[in-house]
Amino acid sequence: MQLGMIGLGRMGADMVRRLTNGGQHCIAFDVQPAAVERLKQDGVAGAASLEDLVAQLEKPRAVWLMVPAAVVDMTLEKLVPLLEPGDIVIDGGNSYYHDDIRRSAELAERKLHYVDVGTSGGVAGRERGYCLMIGGEPEVVKRLEPIFATLAPGAGSEPATPGRVAGSSTADQGFLHCGPQGAGHFVKMVHNGIEYGMMAAYAEGLNILHHADAGKQAREADAETSPLRRPELYQYDLNLADVTEVWRRGSVISSWLLDLIAGSLVSDVELKNYAGRVSDSGEGRWTVAAAIDEGVPTPVLSAALFARFSSRGEADFANRVLSAMRKDFGGHAEKSATPSDKPKS
Amino acid sequence: MQLGMIGLGRMGADMVRRLTNGGQHCIAFDVQPAAVERLKQDGVAGAASLEDLVAQLEKPRAVWLMVPAAVVDMTLEKLVPLLEPGDIVIDGGNSYYHDDIRRSAELAERKLHYVDVGTSGGVAGRERGYCLMIGGEPEVVKRLEPIFATLAPGAGSEPATPGRVAGSSTADQGFLHCGPQGAGHFVKMVHNGIEYGMMAAYAEGLNILHHADAGKQAREADAETSPLRRPELYQYDLNLADVTEVWRRGSVISSWLLDLIAGSLVSDVELKNYAGRVSDSGEGRWTVAAAIDEGVPTPVLSAALFARFSSRGEADFANRVLSAMRKDFGGHAEKSATPSDKPKS
Amino acid sequence: MQLGMIGLGRMGADMVRRLTNGGQHCIAFDVQPAAVERLKQDGVAGAASLEDLVAQLEKPRAVWLMVPAAVVDMTLEKLVPLLEPGDIVIDGGNSYYHDDIRRSAELAERKLHYVDVGTSGGVAGRERGYCLMIGGEPEVVKRLEPIFATLAPGAGSEPATPGRVAGSSTADQGFLHCGPQGAGHFVKMVHNGIEYGMMAAYAEGLNILHHADAGKQAREADAETSPLRRPELYQYDLNLADVTEVWRRGSVISSWLLDLIAGSLVSDVELKNYAGRVSDSGEGRWTVAAAIDEGVPTPVLSAALFARFSSRGEADFANRVLSAMRKDFGGHAEKSATPSDKPKS
Amino acid sequence: MQLGMIGLGRMGADMVRRLTNGGQHCIAFDVQPAAVERLKQDGVAGAASLEDLVAQLEKPRAVWLMVPAAVVDMTLEKLVPLLEPGDIVIDGGNSYYHDDIRRSAELAERKLHYVDVGTSGGVAGRERGYCLMIGGEPEVVKRLEPIFATLAPGAGSEPATPGRVAGSSTADQGFLHCGPQGAGHFVKMVHNGIEYGMMAAYAEGLNILHHADAGKQAREADAETSPLRRPELYQYDLNLADVTEVWRRGSVISSWLLDLIAGSLVSDVELKNYAGRVSDSGEGRWTVAAAIDEGVPTPVLSAALFARFSSRGEADFANRVLSAMRKDFGGHAEKSATPSDKPKS
Repeated sequence: MQLGMIGLGRMGADMVRRLTNGGQHCIAFDVQPAAVERLKQDGVAGAASLEDLVAQLEKPRAVWLMVPAAVVDMTLEKLVPLLEPGDIVIDGGNSYYHDDIRRSAELAERKLHYVDVGTSGGVAGRERGYCLMIGGEPEVVKRLEPIFATLAPGAGSEPATPGRVAGSSTADQGFLHCGPQGAGHFVKMVHNGIEYGMMAAYAEGLNILHHADAGKQAREADAETSPLRRPELYQYDLNLADVTEVWRRGSVISSWLLDLIAGSLVSDVELKNYAGRVSDSGEGRWTVAAAIDEGVPTPVLSAALFARFSSRGEADFANRVLSAMRKDFGGHAEKSATPSDKPKS
Repeated sequence: MQLGMIGLGRMGADMVRRLTNGGQHCIAFDVQPAAVERLKQDGVAGAASLEDLVAQLEKPRAVWLMVPAAVVDMTLEKLVPLLEPGDIVIDGGNSYYHDDIRRSAELAERKLHYVDVGTSGGVAGRERGYCLMIGGEPEVVKRLEPIFATLAPGAGSEPATPGRVAGSSTADQGFLHCGPQGAGHFVKMVHNGIEYGMMAAYAEGLNILHHADAGKQAREADAETSPLRRPELYQYDLNLADVTEVWRRGSVISSWLLDLIAGSLVSDVELKNYAGRVSDSGEGRWTVAAAIDEGVPTPVLSAALFARFSSRGEADFANRVLSAMRKDFGGHAEKSATPSDKPKS
Repeated sequence: MQLGMIGLGRMGADMVRRLTNGGQHCIAFDVQPAAVERLKQDGVAGAASLEDLVAQLEKPRAVWLMVPAAVVDMTLEKLVPLLEPGDIVIDGGNSYYHDDIRRSAELAERKLHYVDVGTSGGVAGRERGYCLMIGGEPEVVKRLEPIFATLAPGAGSEPATPGRVAGSSTADQGFLHCGPQGAGHFVKMVHNGIEYGMMAAYAEGLNILHHADAGKQAREADAETSPLRRPELYQYDLNLADVTEVWRRGSVISSWLLDLIAGSLVSDVELKNYAGRVSDSGEGRWTVAAAIDEGVPTPVLSAALFARFSSRGEADFANRVLSAMRKDFGGHAEKSATPSDKPKS
Repeated sequence: MQLGMIGLGRMGADMVRRLTNGGQHCIAFDVQPAAVERLKQDGVAGAASLEDLVAQLEKPRAVWLMVPAAVVDMTLEKLVPLLEPGDIVIDGGNSYYHDDIRRSAELAERKLHYVDVGTSGGVAGRERGYCLMIGGEPEVVKRLEPIFATLAPGAGSEPATPGRVAGSSTADQGFLHCGPQGAGHFVKMVHNGIEYGMMAAYAEGLNILHHADAGKQAREADAETSPLRRPELYQYDLNLADVTEVWRRGSVISSWLLDLIAGSLVSDVELKNYAGRVSDSGEGRWTVAAAIDEGVPTPVLSAALFARFSSRGEADFANRVLSAMRKDFGGHAEKSATPSDKPKS
């Protein structure tokens, strides 16, 4: 079927290519004409403006937004007046589901349909397919199924889950209508929250392995340094590229994320190319906020989120408060970093 | 090659079967004769006693223990006097690596070799193969390679990691010599620590989705109950069997554990067959203890561990202390469970 | 000075008494006439209705609301139309500071002033005085100083902080103008967040002491139970009433909360009167939400919050997910509670 | 009574002074003669050597060690051969209670008594008195009561706990016989674990207040930066010296630690004199390790411990693993620190 795509960044452009390869008919637009040109060279139809895009689309139109969360409202402001009752707007980016609920109500006043699609798959998605979590009106979501089915990995991408009735849900193909507007981004938000937790689990575990030679390091013997009581227990030099590789085969913790880590460590086992300032782009925060609203305990997901904050120095003032207290009650002077307690790099 | 297997429980028996199918020659023993009989019917050679087992094995012998961690020392007490210099004892269970270091030193006094093997794969391992993390002397580990290679999943079980030089390590086949004695169980211990963290990440995330209808529940309006300020944001009824199924295809959080969860939810989407008392069998504790020794922060892994403790009621006294304080400073009476704040089941 | 007090619950009534004893002139109102009657018997002027209250007050009026957060808006709806430009409304309850910002803007349109006062002190406040954290316009807050000074404990209640210039701030007397509208409840919110963390620190520590006899308990020896490797280290029977009492004198962790715990344990050292379902009334949630907005890591405050959620069974579904995974990958059947691993009570 | 004191550092020297002022008879020794000299000038008897110290003491002797945990064994090696059956050795430092249990058994073979005393109070203890948590044989602890009573703050230092029978325990005076050998340091260890949690609670809360102006900061609008959705809610400039001062009076979170923080902030409200590298000297680690052995959940105490580790850069490798994963699945380049997201200092 026909689809207008607005936003031809990394994700948007790849999705257009996958759709086109899969036989769907895309018309592509981006505020940067060069991005449109690149796709045109791949044989995709392009639009010179929003007006042009809307004009080229058959009614009722389906327009997919793949733009940064921060510019969705701005884009809708320009797009919506060009649309007509019955048209569908799809937000496939990383919007907060609160915004979906608001926007779908706003669009409904103009008899426009709103569909939110949480899209997972990253840069690998073009080949592997995208996992799609969808919110919206049932009949509207149904109408878009050819698009979703083409973007998704398909049923054959993974072995069937034992006991599952084949075809009982499109989930088996890699896309799912989760519920009314916002449900798609809600499920995607929690997906990313889980992702934070899994990533942190791997990172912490690898850090323990990285320091398995702690018994070989000299430690200062002063009242400010906790002694390692049994250094003979920490004498291992582990090759983390090999360890993560072996875990890929047959272990309980095998996963796609682990595949990626194993790949990263092949060429740079110390990960010297990274400084360790870890960004967070919102979904982890929203996940914990939702958990708090619901009264659901999420000690792991929040610990993962806060570790990212701390990696960026956001605990600094708190740490200074701790040092000040230690100085005041115990006369402890703050220790500066020394070779022995400096982290291995 | 030839291998004596002591301990024919779930894991031990399956490993004998995989080894036998793979062309290795096992002699099997268990304190329960019936367990030996069952394997004999599958064509495996059995032993009637430890003495019989040792007598049947060619020198230098290789004996694999697959018994509960708590009975390893007791088994060694009986086995070791029967062995001769040059023989190899392999502990493939879930021993604490501290014990490996001690035991290997004790066995070395008798010129016996000790190899520790952390084994992951669970009940699926018989078909899928086992991921093996190995500690011991290099030449001894080398000698056992036919065994390890047969137990492991093999290189073809997963696509090669991009950039990795094929054959640079046996890790590509699913087994790895990690370092000297104890290194195998050390790496397996951390593997299980990561497993705790990943499991908790999924569990917390699914719990948020499970309560996504929180806005539909009536809440009591009293000073002891935190109000849900925007109930309209929590109106989703999500089908978790479908959500976990869709995540299996193309998402960043796809994993073998997720495959299992999706399978569990097919037939029992509310997981009513479980009470939620989650056991821990030691590795998670040891992982956090190692992290503390090394000075490595593991907020996620420890939160996952403590959630299991709490699931078994171990926070009860602490909770009563909290209620007592609230009573004393604020006059707050403890609320009993009410329909509105009772967890959904 | 003159003050109208709306809401004569535990806190409101005690505050009226403290103000009256301190020479201020209160007119008291509550929707329950009996509450007004009780104060009248103590010599306080009462009002029969909101209209009566407003009529009795000299202009410009000052009206203090001490009602549950959930009924503030409802009360304002009735009160505001009765007031005149220049009058002051004070919210001394546990309102969310978001609401203060909204309400102060709404009241400003009618030229009414809004002051938010976070009030700490609990049931002890009548004697000890209340700690007051205040948000509002400077000159309006200034006008109310006689009220604040009477409610607060006063400078003499604690020794002066060394180095502090006496009289440099009203903080020395126990009340503080923190900033514009909302600042008072913002500071009070974080105060309560800290309170959650402190309470949890005591509760967890006491729980460790409570289980210091763990080595005396028999443990099941099965693969589902982590063994206690050195039971000889956990043979202590500690008297927690005495331990908390000794900490009150000279220790680094002495505090008012500790005084309360020591008091609770005197008569009920096992705290058998509590079930351990710990309520949370909002401030802890809002504190963590604010931290997330600001990007500030709060692993301790959030862990304290989530422990309360878990105490009420809100982790149950997550725990069932964990048990289901353990069953699926390892064949582990869920253990039921047994005498040996049941928590001590 | 008479007491030999070995170790005249900050704590040891102050304790000798308090004992002497309280009428006890101390003989003081330190490996540094200058330390002995300083006390002699205050009228305290000094010893030139361990032999001299032992010779000067009346039998049965009582010798108090106030030396770093790392040199206790070394000191005992020299001291013990000089002692005679019936003599008492007291370890008042920060020893691990595991060592107490071992040492008391070793000393018992020579018919020497061992008493462990956890001592809290820090540099303020000389004036305020020390909180003493004691382990040992009942009659031996009883014999030392004059010493403990003089070191402790005394019953009058705090108001009596309501409901407590006066004189029912020496806890009311500030010292407590907690149980057999090791019990004193066990209780002190948990005391310090609680201290970590309380300190972190204050530090995190103050960090939230410190960033209460987050809405005034410009943020970069890119996909790597989570937007602050409602900057109008974070417009507060709070004076933390005043806020902590006001909390000292009447609030639920008043404590001795808070008194110290308020004092620190008077002269350096930004705590610019500290870098925020927070040491830990062992007790926090041991507390969490004990909790894990007992199966007691301590999410707050462990989060506080791990925050200290992270403050010293020990999460760095884990953070680089996270950045590597983000790069691999999402193409996210690591952001460097920019003025807008750099922490306020």
